[in-house]
Parts: sequence; C-alpha cells; structure tokens
Amino acid sequence: MKVSILGGSGYAGGELLRLLINHPDCKITRVTSQRFAGEPLYRVHPNLRGRTNLRFDDKSLATHNDNDLVFTALPHGKSAGLVPQLLDQGTKIVDLAADFRLKNPEAYPEYYHTKHEHPELLEKAVYGLPEIHREDIRNAKLVAVPGCMATASILGLAPLVKTGIVEKEHIVIDAKIGSSGAGAGPSMGSHHPEREGGVRPYKIVGHRHTPEIEQELGQLNGGNVKVAFTPHAVGMVRGILVTIHAFTRGQVEKKDVWKAYRGEYGNEPFIRMVSDNKGLFGLPNPKNVIGTNLCDIGFETDAHVNRLLVMSAIDNLTKGAAGAAVQCYNVMAGLDERTGLDTIGLHP
Amino acid sequence: MKVSILGGSGYAGGELLRLLINHPDCKITRVTSQRFAGEPLYRVHPNLRGRTNLRFDDKSLATHNDNDLVFTALPHGKSAGLVPQLLDQGTKIVDLAADFRLKNPEAYPEYYHTKHEHPELLEKAVYGLPEIHREDIRNAKLVAVPGCMATASILGLAPLVKTGIVEKEHIVIDAKIGSSGAGAGPSMGSHHPEREGGVRPYKIVGHRHTPEIEQELGQLNGGNVKVAFTPHAVGMVRGILVTIHAFTRGQVEKKDVWKAYRGEYGNEPFIRMVSDNKGLFGLPNPKNVIGTNLCDIGFETDAHVNRLLVMSAIDNLTKGAAGAAVQCYNVMAGLDERTGLDTIGLHP
Amino acid sequence: MKVSILGGSGYAGGELLRLLINHPDCKITRVTSQRFAGEPLYRVHPNLRGRTNLRFDDKSLATHNDNDLVFTALPHGKSAGLVPQLLDQGTKIVDLAADFRLKNPEAYPEYYHTKHEHPELLEKAVYGLPEIHREDIRNAKLVAVPGCMATASILGLAPLVKTGIVEKEHIVIDAKIGSSGAGAGPSMGSHHPEREGGVRPYKIVGHRHTPEIEQELGQLNGGNVKVAFTPHAVGMVRGILVTIHAFTRGQVEKKDVWKAYRGEYGNEPFIRMVSDNKGLFGLPNPKNVIGTNLCDIGFETDAHVNRLLVMSAIDNLTKGAAGAAVQCYNVMAGLDERTGLDTIGLHP
Amino acid sequence: MKVSILGGSGYAGGELLRLLINHPDCKITRVTSQRFAGEPLYRVHPNLRGRTNLRFDDKSLATHNDNDLVFTALPHGKSAGLVPQLLDQGTKIVDLAADFRLKNPEAYPEYYHTKHEHPELLEKAVYGLPEIHREDIRNAKLVAVPGCMATASILGLAPLVKTGIVEKEHIVIDAKIGSSGAGAGPSMGSHHPEREGGVRPYKIVGHRHTPEIEQELGQLNGGNVKVAFTPHAVGMVRGILVTIHAFTRGQVEKKDVWKAYRGEYGNEPFIRMVSDNKGLFGLPNPKNVIGTNLCDIGFETDAHVNRLLVMSAIDNLTKGAAGAAVQCYNVMAGLDERTGLDTIGLHP
Repeated sequence: MKVSILGGSGYAGGELLRLLINHPDCKITRVTSQRFAGEPLYRVHPNLRGRTNLRFDDKSLATHNDNDLVFTALPHGKSAGLVPQLLDQGTKIVDLAADFRLKNPEAYPEYYHTKHEHPELLEKAVYGLPEIHREDIRNAKLVAVPGCMATASILGLAPLVKTGIVEKEHIVIDAKIGSSGAGAGPSMGSHHPEREGGVRPYKIVGHRHTPEIEQELGQLNGGNVKVAFTPHAVGMVRGILVTIHAFTRGQVEKKDVWKAYRGEYGNEPFIRMVSDNKGLFGLPNPKNVIGTNLCDIGFETDAHVNRLLVMSAIDNLTKGAAGAAVQCYNVMAGLDERTGLDTIGLHP
Repeated sequence: MKVSILGGSGYAGGELLRLLINHPDCKITRVTSQRFAGEPLYRVHPNLRGRTNLRFDDKSLATHNDNDLVFTALPHGKSAGLVPQLLDQGTKIVDLAADFRLKNPEAYPEYYHTKHEHPELLEKAVYGLPEIHREDIRNAKLVAVPGCMATASILGLAPLVKTGIVEKEHIVIDAKIGSSGAGAGPSMGSHHPEREGGVRPYKIVGHRHTPEIEQELGQLNGGNVKVAFTPHAVGMVRGILVTIHAFTRGQVEKKDVWKAYRGEYGNEPFIRMVSDNKGLFGLPNPKNVIGTNLCDIGFETDAHVNRLLVMSAIDNLTKGAAGAAVQCYNVMAGLDERTGLDTIGLHP
Repeated sequence: MKVSILGGSGYAGGELLRLLINHPDCKITRVTSQRFAGEPLYRVHPNLRGRTNLRFDDKSLATHNDNDLVFTALPHGKSAGLVPQLLDQGTKIVDLAADFRLKNPEAYPEYYHTKHEHPELLEKAVYGLPEIHREDIRNAKLVAVPGCMATASILGLAPLVKTGIVEKEHIVIDAKIGSSGAGAGPSMGSHHPEREGGVRPYKIVGHRHTPEIEQELGQLNGGNVKVAFTPHAVGMVRGILVTIHAFTRGQVEKKDVWKAYRGEYGNEPFIRMVSDNKGLFGLPNPKNVIGTNLCDIGFETDAHVNRLLVMSAIDNLTKGAAGAAVQCYNVMAGLDERTGLDTIGLHP
Repeated sequence: MKVSILGGSGYAGGELLRLLINHPDCKITRVTSQRFAGEPLYRVHPNLRGRTNLRFDDKSLATHNDNDLVFTALPHGKSAGLVPQLLDQGTKIVDLAADFRLKNPEAYPEYYHTKHEHPELLEKAVYGLPEIHREDIRNAKLVAVPGCMATASILGLAPLVKTGIVEKEHIVIDAKIGSSGAGAGPSMGSHHPEREGGVRPYKIVGHRHTPEIEQELGQLNGGNVKVAFTPHAVGMVRGILVTIHAFTRGQVEKKDVWKAYRGEYGNEPFIRMVSDNKGLFGLPNPKNVIGTNLCDIGFETDAHVNRLLVMSAIDNLTKGAAGAAVQCYNVMAGLDERTGLDTIGLHP
C-alpha cells in the first residue's frame, strides 16, 4: 500500500517512520510537518539518517489522495476535522490521536475540554486494539489507536473482567510512564533537571485515558466498569508499567487466572505472559519490551487481602502508539500481523 | 552524648555519619566495620573526605561501654543478639534494622524466615516514629527505626485510619523506591545496566514492611488493618514515593481530610503538606526531599470511584533510616528535634 | 548584611537562596523575578517550602537601595546595564553572569555577540575566584563570579601553569556537564527524552568559557596561554568533570606535581586533593561534591606520552555559581569563608 | 552456516544472540554457559523470551565439532586455550575477547598481566575491523573482534593518521562509556547508586585498549603512533563516545579532512559521517546508534589552537562487540555485510 503520515515530527510520527521504512509491504509517499517542512527527516529523527531521503512536506491535504491509507499523528483535536475529506476520497485512516477513541461524544468536553467536530463518525471508528477488535479492524475505514496507558491497562484487565474473576469495584490502576510519553516538545515536566531522579504523580484524578479503559472494559462484561486510575512520571525515556490492584470475592486459584489469560491471549502474537516470578526478569518490566510491539503481562494472587495483582508493560511509542498503528495496518492490509514488527528488544 | 555506630560502611551507616558529624550535641567515638577495619571512612563514603579523621574499627562490643548510646546499622538479624549486653551495660540503642520493629514474635519466622533470638525484648522496644510514639521514645532504652517504606506509608495513612475517614478494606499501597534502598552491596537488581531505564515490581506480595504498617495502623484504630502493599524498583538513587489508593464510604469532603492531617501533624517539624496540585511541585515527589528528614504528604479526593488518594514521599536513607534515627536520638536526648536535621534539600 | 537577589527564579538564583536562607550573617530582603512576581518562592524552588515566607518581587531597581549587597543572577547581558546605578548608591554587587568576567572588551563581541555597555567597569570588576584573587575580592565593589566550567578548569591548571610544569601548548580540556548547567528553561538540549542516556558534544570550538580560562591562566605565567576546550552534555543533573590532558617536557615527578598543588592550595578550604586512585572514590567524580562548594582535584603522570592528566570536579550550581558567590560574599564581609558553606555532600 | 556460541550469558553473548536469532543465513546450534546450564536463554536475556527455545548448555568443547564457526564470548584469557583444538577440527573462530587482538606477545604480560598461551597464533589471527582488514577477514580462520573503545578510536583516527593530516604527537582520546561496558556481573563500579549521576575516570593511564589503537594506527602510517587514552564511566547503559583531540601542523582545511574520510569510508555500510553541526543531532552522540552496528563520526577544525577535533560514537555491545562479530561473520561467509544488521535505532 501507499501511505502518508500527517504529523511526522513528533515521537509517535518518528516511531511510525522507524517501523514503516523497513516494512516490506508499505511505501511511504509523504510525511508532513509544518514546522520542519523542507528539512530532511534525519534533522528531527537522527536514527533515520542514511535510511531515507524523504524530507518533511507541508503540502495540503488534497495531495494525499494518491494514498491508500493515511496515518495521522497530529496533536489531539487536529485530525477530527481532516477525516471526512480523507474518507470521501476513499482513503483509509489510522489515527494515533484521541479524536476517535471514545464512543460517547459527551466524553470529549468532559475529558478533552472541547466539543467533538464530527460526533457522527465516532460510531464508525474502530478502537484499534486488535486483541479485542481484530475483526472490526479488518474492514475498518477509520481506526483510532488507543491511548498508551489505556492499552496496557485494558490488555492487563480484559480477560479478568470478561470472565468476572475480579470485582468491578476497587480496580486500582497505578501507572508509571517514561518521559517520551509527554511528547517531543520541551516542557517543565520533561525538563531533564526536573524529571531525572524523581517520581511525579500527575493528573492524579480524571486522566484522559480513564474513559477509554472504562469504555472497553464495560463492553466486555456488558456493564459499567469504573477504574481508579493514576499515572506517575518517572525518569526513564520509553516505557509504561501499569500495576493493577484488583480484588476478588474470596480466594481465587492461580490456575483459573492462567486459564482466563490463555483463553483470551493464547494465540496473540504480541502478548507475552511473564509471570513466573523467577530471577530478575520473571515479571513485566517495560525495559524488557523497549522498541518492540510486545505487551508483557504477569499476575499474582494475594490471599492476605483477596487481591489479584496484575502488571502490564509496554513501550509507549510502539505498542502504545506507532506499533499498534502498524499492527492495525497489517490487519487492514491482510498481512501477517507481525510484518515489520518482529524486532527483538535490547538487553540490557 | 557519646555515641558509636555499629556497621558504618553501609548506606544507612554512612547517612548516620553525614548527619552526626555536623550534629552539635553528639560525639562519635567509634564506627565499626569488619570489612573495612582500619580504613579511613572516606574510602567508603567519599562525602566524608576532609570532614573526619575517623577510621573503621572492628573492636569487640565490650569496648562500646564508654558510650551513652549505640546506633546499630547492621544487616537484619545481626543486632538482636547484641542488644541484651548493651542494655546490661546501660547503653541505649537505636537500631536501624528490623530486629525490634514487630511486636508479634511470630511475624519474624513468617516475614524474616528466622526465629527471633530475644522475643522478650520486643515489647520493650519502641517503634521509632516520633510522629506517633514521641512520648515513648523520650524514655526508651531501645528504639527500632521503622522500615523506609513503612514510614512513608504509615505517615500517609495514620490520620485517615485514626479518624476512620477511609474504609479498612481495599487499602492499596503502591510504592516506588530508588536503588540505594537495596543497600551498598552490588547485586543484579541494582546492577546499573539492569536497573536504569526500567520499573521492576519486586516482592509483590508479602513484603516485609507489610506487618509493620499493619501493626501501627491497627493500633491507631483499635482493630485489624490489612494493606495491599507492592513495591517497585525504579531508576532513581534515593527516594520513595508511596501512592496510597484508599476508598471511602460515600463522598468525603476535602476539608475533612485537611482537618485530619492538620490535627495530627499541625506541629510536626518534618511533615510538609504538599497538596495544592499547582505547578510542577504541588504534589509530593521524592526528588524534592532528597537529603532531608522531611515527609511530604499530599492527597486528592476522587468522587468518580469514592477514592481518597494519598501520596507520601521521603528520602529512604534520611527519614527512612538515618534521619529518623537522629530524630529519635534528639527526642531521647531532650534536644530540639530539628537538631542536625535542618538541611535544605537541593533544587534541581 | 542585608542583601537582595535579582533574578531568583533560575537554578543559580535558587541555589543562592538555598545557601543564604541558612546563612547566619546574611538577611535576604528581596528576591526578584518578573515572571513569577507575587508567587511564593516554593512554587519555583520546591526545596524552600516551609523554609521561607518570601515571595518573588518585581519592584524596580531603585528599591534595592536599602541593601548592602546585591546578587545578580540574571541572564548574560542583563546585569551590565544595572551595575552603574547600584554602584552609585553604594551597593556592592556579586554578579553571577558573564558581564564582568573578561578584561578585554573585544572578547564580548567575539564570544557573546554583543558590544559591552560599560567597558570602563571591566577593569574595576574582580574575577570571583578567591583561590586566586582573594585579596582583591576582599575590597571589591563588583565581583564577577566565574563561569562554571572555567572554575573547574582554572583551579585544576593554575598551580601547573604558574610553576611551568606543563607546556603551554596542547592543553586539552575535555568537560562533561550535567543538565542543570543549561538553566531552568526547557529546551531541546535538556529535554529529558533527548538528554538521558547519551553524551552530546556541543559548542565544541569557541565555547564562551575559553577566554576566561585563558585570561586567568595567562595572568599566572605572565604570558599567553591557549586551551583546546570542548564540553559534553551528559545525563546527570548537577556536576562538572573537566579532564585536562596537558603535556610536559620530559618526564615529570609526581612529587613535584604534589608540591605545586600543595603550595598553592595547602590552606584552601574548598579544595580537596582526591588523587590516591584507590577504590571507587580515589579520583574526582562530580557525584561526590554535589551540593557542596568543594572542588576535588586529582592528577596522574603518564610517562607513555609525557602527559600530565588532571581531573577537576565541582557542582556547577555551587562552586560553579552560587556557592562561589557566597564564598566571595564571605570574603567581602570579613567572615570565615566557610560560613554557610559547610554542608556535607550525600553518599550515594 | 551452523554456529555455536561459547559464553552466551554475558552482555556480548546476549547481543550476539539477539543479532543471530533473526539472521537469515545462520543457524545457532548451541549456546554455552557453565553458570546457567540447563536454563532457558530468556532467564538471563529477557528480550529473547518467546523468540527461541534454546537453553544454555555446558557440554564440552568436543561437541562443537559439528559447527562451521564458533563465536567465543568468554572472559579475557579463556579463549586462547581453546582455539588450537577448534582450528584443528576445521572450525573457524570469531573471538570477542582480547586474546588474539595484539600482534606483540609481550604486550599481554604488560597489559593483561599474563603470558600468552599460544603466541604462535597471534600472527595468524586477523584484527576484526572490516573497514581496515576486510580482505584478510574474508579468508581468516581466526578473527579477533576489537575492543569497543579501540573500534571507536581507530575508526575516528584511521583516515587522519593514514593521510598524515594530524601530528603523531599529542593525540588525546577522551572516552565516555556506558555501564554495560563493564559486563553483566555486578560490581561496585556498576552499582546503580554509585554509577548513576556521576562521571568517573578510571584506568586513566595504561588502559588495555591503548596497545590495540597504537598497533592499528601504527600499521597505517608505517611508523610508531602513541596515544594519550583515558576512559570515563558515565551513567548511560549502552554507548561510547570518544572525543579525539589531535593537532595539525598549521591550519588544515575542512575539505581536506572531508576528503580523507570520504576516501576511506565512502562505501562503508556502517560508517555515517555526522558532521554538519546543525541542530541537536548534527554531531555524534552514542544515543543515536544504540542497538545498531553504526559508527557515527564527526569532526571540526579549531584554528585557535590548530586542533582537529574528532568525535566517534558506537554502541559498545553492537559495533563494539557482537555487531562487529556478525559483520566479520558476514564477510567470512561471503554475505552482504549488512545481513542481520539493518536495524534502525530508536528515537528517542
């Protein structure tokens, strides 16, 4: 397929480029950036030096009509206005922003402080988590790539919520996220002297990934699920670990939890159960999935307080953004889902 | 007072030295280390170069009878056997290990895999958290400095448990701790290539600080409190953040929470309420207390799920170990509690 | 003395506040910041919460006439215009910027791209390195605190240049500096995702600290000294290590090098010779001086290539800026030079 | 080809596994580790979980006779004794240790404190730097992969020494290296609390990579080259930056330096000239080559002191060890040199 990328100068856009340049069934025709128009890609993404001669482009949207599919990696709120025109010209869209993740239009003013421009499209968009919506993605025209912390949270919880192993109340999700999660633009929160060497809770109540998590989990058990979600900014660059503290009615057997995960994820190409608790690497740690599209999941039962503890680790830019986008692309293109995504991570 | 330090080559021992060398009412007569006997202190603690001529000493315990007080910063299980002799010779003890923290002798085999050598002393020992046991510490012969993550957890929760604002069930404590918490001895878990750039959950169920937290909180509300405690190893060097997710029966008013904290901590010299959520520094972050004896506490109510969220940050080596020991010392010696502990932390 | 601080919201200004709030012979009357006027200091410097009730002030310069001394911690080029008025009203100035460091007015257009507003004051200003200009500082009205990397470089080289042990040609200074050196304002170079985990050479030729180093070393040997200076941005927050590779005519004896250092620095309160090369802490490492006003110096002879290798480590914000300013203040005020500067650093 | 790896539990062995598991023309038959024999590879290298079913093996050397080639990633001094037997059975060897890097047998006692067991093999071994010894490697039976800091240094200097642009005296190489360079075994120097946040000069004179650098550069200009080499341990995990300060007789033109580099490296697949000094990524920074086999080289002339400044950046485990080994393997196997080595690095 021929594809273009709208908004290629951010970290998610750069990660898309990293993955697509080596992708055997994808040809990038154009990468846009208003700010860096005319510059070679490597001026912004040093890893691409010597790997592509493309330059950033700021040509108008109309020029994208020679593409089969457009990836939009624009800031939240910027893609909603472009999508109708792209759909009209028969271009498929994989949107990495939040504009089409939520089904409920009223959630946008509440969580994004803005009215949605095209609420009629929300139902047409497919939530881009192949582990849950693979069939819908296959035929989708418009895919909304999930929020990074939402992905880790939903994948960790889905089999437990679906099977009803955990109570729906008191689901605590405590997330730890690296600095690349805040984007490529300098800010005080990601200023090295302030970020390094600390753990900073932020947006501790009402974070935007909350409604995504609740929407997806709610669909799985046919009801209402609420989560207590709080993220923390830590001093790593890439990576998310979500620690999920859920509770069970009475004691649960580990084999039943294994059964729930295996039933749901037994054939998933990007989910690894990392749950033997042996040695330094027996539980999920985002360090072990950096640069890959993997989601590592581990769990433990805690009879002391009837807790079911789940840890879920991803690279926020890969499985949490651009890798998920490419995985959806592969599904939409009828390719093996691993195409272009089979990198082995680094150790150490 | 004349004091000596048993076990001065570890990180807690080194932090004690940093604090006591400048302490105006304390004279260090002896610092022991079997491994570094004869070496100048600065060979192990480079910050002490030029500040003391002391060398590590391995003389037998008997020689400590010229001291008024002994700080023991030995590995867990090593001080229990020494304490009776020290008490016999009229020496007071401030123990930084776990040997006298728990009242219930049966908790030692369960959590420390060893029978306690002197269970009869457990009731005589005072848990060294002045914010809760100040009067008992004043007259104590034997003080057990709390575990670092226990300190942050108890201080964050005490006013809420005492006043009954939070439910006793479903108290989740999600801790993040720096690498110095694992001690001065190299290990795979603190090996730089493995530690840096990740978040590693460890001892996710049944961590040793759990019974301390439950013991102290249980005393406050006259009953049984259980906590769901899980720590994570992060890439900072010093510091602990505990994020406490507690739940309330119905919605709670912020002013009632403020009242609980103010009532308990209004005059505490080392507790700062950091809870305005303004700017980058409006909530606790261990980075902001490094090198100080402060415990920063912040909270937020979350009507969405009837959650009361508490964050509590300390330096694990200061308020979490040596600073607390000096604070106890000051109480025992009848000094202003801030003596030797008025360092202003660094920014950035 | 009563002092005020012009420009208190940056990192050097914040470090000045940290040091002066606890200084026994100094009263801060006013701290200015245009951007944060009206805000409590702790909104910008979280370490000061609970330690001062001061707020940032933007009152005009005239109001500083109740002060004995003003510290200016403004951006380069901003203090030159203010100094004449302050001098006129009899206020002494300790300037942390570069405006009065260089004696040669022509160096300003070359290195700072701007003509100096008051070249007539350059000769009156004293270069604020007490180890070299102590007597002049004592009676100075205007002191220019040296550049951070210049301090480490000059202190490392001064005794060697003065005694002529090293050749004047081929003096290489390879500097490594932490992210706080680039200031409190977010920028791409200090953006955490870009900074962490790398080593980035920058301003590799013609760095602004070069002329300071050459000016000061040239004065010591009555001639012309040129240095090959190149800095590198590394992933620590505070700290500078300069590695000086100098060459000798024939082989030099270590005892002669020791003699040169001892002769010059034997009584210096803030210089530690760290040169035994034993263990992990036998050579300078900025980590070991963080938060202190120390300069650690070590050296080694290398017969293989007739090299004399010198390492010099400081905290860029303390001995490299605010600590040096306070040291100069102490000299000017006739106090013990250590006053307010006796903090023991942290380990680890 | 069928290959085995002797010593697969260290970081270089792990990196070899990462590269070879996806290599299209290589089949790994056996990976040995005495310590982890019987364990699955992922217990030690978490990135390999799900990518291979191999387990560590401790079978004797004899069993390797079914291989075409053996990679040895054993500690220094351990491969020398094994090589004769492997050569006898017709197996080729790519050795990642230092045992066959030096031509002069007397250098081993001097730099490695041990007499070489098989000095007669030193002349038969080929120094595994394809950029210099490609033709010899093609037909080699025994290849010695260069030391990591030697690779960065030699590649940075070779064209300059060969063409005589720089003087042979006063060549300063100031290296900065990440913690993985010290290996997978915990030690005080790589203990996270001690390593993070500092810059520690070590083995400042007489480092073992010195004779390799001098041997290779000496061969290029038919004479004797000596270098002033000093490494520094910094807080990153992977990566090396060497900053080379060389001097020229009179001023040199940049175009002549470009000509030297282009002439030598114009067709090299793994050398990128990164020397435009534009933006944040216009000079070499090891962060930009992590996980790749690239060596980024940049330079600048400094008329102020007739200096020619060169920066050279690699990933110590890839181009500095396992990647170089695979590159040599590709040459020996008659494959495209990029085979299995075309990973695009990460940003950020």
